[in-house]
Amino acid sequence: MKQISVGIVGFGTVGTGVLRVLTENKPEIERKIGSAIEVTRIADLDITTERSVKFDKSLLTTDVSQILDDPSIDIVVETIGGVHPAKEFILRALGNGKHVVSANKELIAKEGSELLRTADKKGLDFYFEGSVGGGIPIIRPLKESLAANKITEVMGIVNGTTNYILTKMALEGRDFAKVLAEAQKAGYAEPDPTSDIEGYDAKYKIAILASIAFTSRVNVDDIYSEGITKIGPKDIRNAQELGYAIKLLAIAKRNGEKMQIRVHPTLIPSTHPLASVNDVYNAIYVRGDFVQDVMFYGRGAGSLPTGSALAGDIMEIARNMKFKANGRLPCTCFDQRAVESMDEVVTKYYIRMLVADRPGVLAKIASVFGENGVSIASVVQKDQQGDRAEIVMVTHQVAEKNFRRAIGAISNLEVVSEICSWIRVEE
Amino acid sequence: MKQISVGIVGFGTVGTGVLRVLTENKPEIERKIGSAIEVTRIADLDITTERSVKFDKSLLTTDVSQILDDPSIDIVVETIGGVHPAKEFILRALGNGKHVVSANKELIAKEGSELLRTADKKGLDFYFEGSVGGGIPIIRPLKESLAANKITEVMGIVNGTTNYILTKMALEGRDFAKVLAEAQKAGYAEPDPTSDIEGYDAKYKIAILASIAFTSRVNVDDIYSEGITKIGPKDIRNAQELGYAIKLLAIAKRNGEKMQIRVHPTLIPSTHPLASVNDVYNAIYVRGDFVQDVMFYGRGAGSLPTGSALAGDIMEIARNMKFKANGRLPCTCFDQRAVESMDEVVTKYYIRMLVADRPGVLAKIASVFGENGVSIASVVQKDQQGDRAEIVMVTHQVAEKNFRRAIGAISNLEVVSEICSWIRVEE
Repeated sequence: MKQISVGIVGFGTVGTGVLRVLTENKPEIERKIGSAIEVTRIADLDITTERSVKFDKSLLTTDVSQILDDPSIDIVVETIGGVHPAKEFILRALGNGKHVVSANKELIAKEGSELLRTADKKGLDFYFEGSVGGGIPIIRPLKESLAANKITEVMGIVNGTTNYILTKMALEGRDFAKVLAEAQKAGYAEPDPTSDIEGYDAKYKIAILASIAFTSRVNVDDIYSEGITKIGPKDIRNAQELGYAIKLLAIAKRNGEKMQIRVHPTLIPSTHPLASVNDVYNAIYVRGDFVQDVMFYGRGAGSLPTGSALAGDIMEIARNMKFKANGRLPCTCFDQRAVESMDEVVTKYYIRMLVADRPGVLAKIASVFGENGVSIASVVQKDQQGDRAEIVMVTHQVAEKNFRRAIGAISNLEVVSEICSWIRVEE
Repeated sequence: MKQISVGIVGFGTVGTGVLRVLTENKPEIERKIGSAIEVTRIADLDITTERSVKFDKSLLTTDVSQILDDPSIDIVVETIGGVHPAKEFILRALGNGKHVVSANKELIAKEGSELLRTADKKGLDFYFEGSVGGGIPIIRPLKESLAANKITEVMGIVNGTTNYILTKMALEGRDFAKVLAEAQKAGYAEPDPTSDIEGYDAKYKIAILASIAFTSRVNVDDIYSEGITKIGPKDIRNAQELGYAIKLLAIAKRNGEKMQIRVHPTLIPSTHPLASVNDVYNAIYVRGDFVQDVMFYGRGAGSLPTGSALAGDIMEIARNMKFKANGRLPCTCFDQRAVESMDEVVTKYYIRMLVADRPGVLAKIASVFGENGVSIASVVQKDQQGDRAEIVMVTHQVAEKNFRRAIGAISNLEVVSEICSWIRVEE
C-alpha cells in the first residue's frame, strides 16, 4: 500500500480536528482509498500548549518550511486562517508540487481564483470542502452531482453564531445584546464577534458558493452585507405573526448575465425549509434548472465536523494520486459576471415604524410609498405607545432604490416619529 | 475536444429526463468537463409514442445491441428498471468495456455487488447517484465528502408517494384510502401503488444507502418493511398532540458488528429535521462519528431531477476518462454484516387501543406490560365511544420481541376490545 504523507500547517481548532479524524478512523479511511495516510509533520508557532488530541509530539515544529519544502510531504493541510501568510504558504506548497487542502473561507473567497489556477497549471489538487458549512458536503455536490444543472439560486444560513443568536431571540423574546453576551459565555460567539454578527463570515462563504454555482469569478468587495445587530425581539415576533422567520441569509441569484449576491437579515416564510434551521445549524438551499430545489443541512462549524470535511478532501486527493488524476476537478470560474448593485435588487420589504395615532396618517404614508412606486401588500397596527401607534407593513416587489427613496421621504413626514426597522423579505 | 458517446437504454420518464438535461445544458456541461457529450443512440421497445423532449428521431432503435455492442459508445445509461433484463444488459455493456450509469434501485439493491465488482475488475465506472433520492446528491457525498466518518445511522424519507399521502392525511385529517385515490388521480401515485405504499421502494433505497454507509453487503430479503396502509387520521392527530409527526422512515443503524435496517411508519419528534419534510420531498438524515448530523433534502423522484443526477454521473465518468481514472471510486462493501432481526430491535412504541371504560382496566394492562418488561412512558385517555374508551400509550425503550409478546397478551384481555394500532417511535 502506497503511503501518503500529510503535513498540517496550523494546529488550532481545525488542525487538531483533522488530525483526530485521520488518527481515529485510520483503518476505515485507508481501506476505502487503498493507500496509507500518515501525518508526518505539524507546524504551529505554539507547540507547547496542550491539545485535546493524542499525538506524537515529535511531529511538532515551529518551522513551516519543514512542511512546505519537504519533498516527502504529498499533501499540505492549511488551517491557520486569514489571507496572509496562508496565501504565501499555499503558493509555496503548490510551487513545490504538493496538493493542498484548506478550509480558509476568507482566503478562498478573496484569492481562490489565483490559488486554483496555480494548482490547475501544475496538475495539482486544491480542495476546500470545509470552507463553507463545516462538515456539510456542499462544494463537491455543487461541482459534481449537481454539475449538469444551471444553478439559478443559492440561499444559505452559513453562519452558526448568528443563527444561534436569532434562534434564542425568537424562542425567548430577548434582546440581541443579552443573547450575544450569553453566546459568548457559552463559546458559541467569539470574544470579538464582529465577523460573524456583521455578516463578513457569511459574505466570504456566499462568494465561494456563488463562484461555483455561476461559474464566475466573484469580487468579495462587491457583495453587500448587513449584520443582525439591529434586529429586535419585536421584529421577530411580528415576523412570526405574519408567518415568517427572520434569518441571516446569504443569497446568490443568477439574474440574466449578472449575479445578485448579498448577505442580510431576511424574512422567509415559516414553511420554507430554511425557516426551521435553528441553533448553530447551517443549511444551504440550492435551486437548479433541472434538479429544482435541494437543501444541505448540518453543523456549519466546529473542530470535528470541519476536520471530517478536510479528511474527505485528503481522501479524494489520495484517490486521484492512485490514478495520477490530480487536477481532474479544475476551477470552473470561466466568467466574469458583474454583481448587481443593491439599488437594482428587486425584493419585498417589512417595515416597522412609530407614527402619530390620528386619522389620515396611513393615507399620508401610503401616498409617499405610491409616489415612489412602492405598493403595500399588508398593514397591521400594533401596540399603542402614548399618542403614537406602531405599524407594521409589508410591501410588494420593488427595486431597492425606490424603496430607499420612499423610506427617506417617509421618515421626514411630520406624522412619523421613527422608522424602527426595515428588513428584506424572500418568498 | 474529445467526444464521448452515450447510449440510452429505455426511453421512458428517466430516459427522456436525462436526454433533456444533456441536450438543454450541453454548452455548460461540456465547458465544465472539457469534453463533448453526444447521445448517439436510444433504444426502447416503443419507438413510436410521442415523447416530451425534442430529439433526432433517427437515434431511436428497438435493437438494444446497437448500444450494448457498438464499440463507438462509451457510456450506457440504463433506465428500463427492474432486475431483468436490466442486469443482463448492464453486464453485457461492462463486458464490452463500457461505463454504465443507472438509477435502477431494485437492481442495485439486489445485484449491485456483482455489477460493481464486475465494473471494478475491468477498471470501468458504474455510477448510480439517481437510484436514491432522485436529484438529491447522497450516494457520492457518502462515498466522498463524508468518507472519513464512521457512519452510525442513516434515516430517510425516501419515498415521495407515501410522504405526499401522509402529509395530506396530516393536513386534512382524511383517510388513507381517499388520499391515495386522489394521489393516483394527480399522478403522484402509480395505478398499482403496492411498491410505494408497502415500503418495497424504500427498502431498496435503504439497502443501497446502508451498504455504502456501513461498507457491507446487504441482503435485501433481510430488511423488514411495513407500509402505511394501516395508519389512520386518529394516529396522526394523536402523534401531533404528543409532539410527533408520522413518517414512513427507512432506518439503518450500526449496532456493534450488526446492522439494523428497517422500513416502517415512525413517530419522530416534530423538532427533528425530518419531521418538516413534507409533500413529495425526500430527505436523508445521516449521522457520522465526526461530522455528527447532516441532512440532504430535495425532490426524490421525477424525470428531470433524476435526469440531473444521471447527467452528473455521466460528467464524472467523462472527467475520469480524461485522466484514464475510471474505477477510482470502487465498491466499498468490504464486510458481510448481519442484519439484526426485528425481535432484537430496541425502540419505543406508540399504541392506540379501545378498552372497557371502567376502573381497574389500566392497571390490568399496565401489569401485563410490566410482566413482559415493557415500561410505559405516558398514557392519555382519548374519546369515549359508548361504554368503551380509547387510550393512547407511549412506551420506553424495549426489545420488539418483548413488546410483541405484551401486545399479544393484552389483546387477549377481556377488558380490551381492540388494539387499533401500534407504531414505532424514534427520538
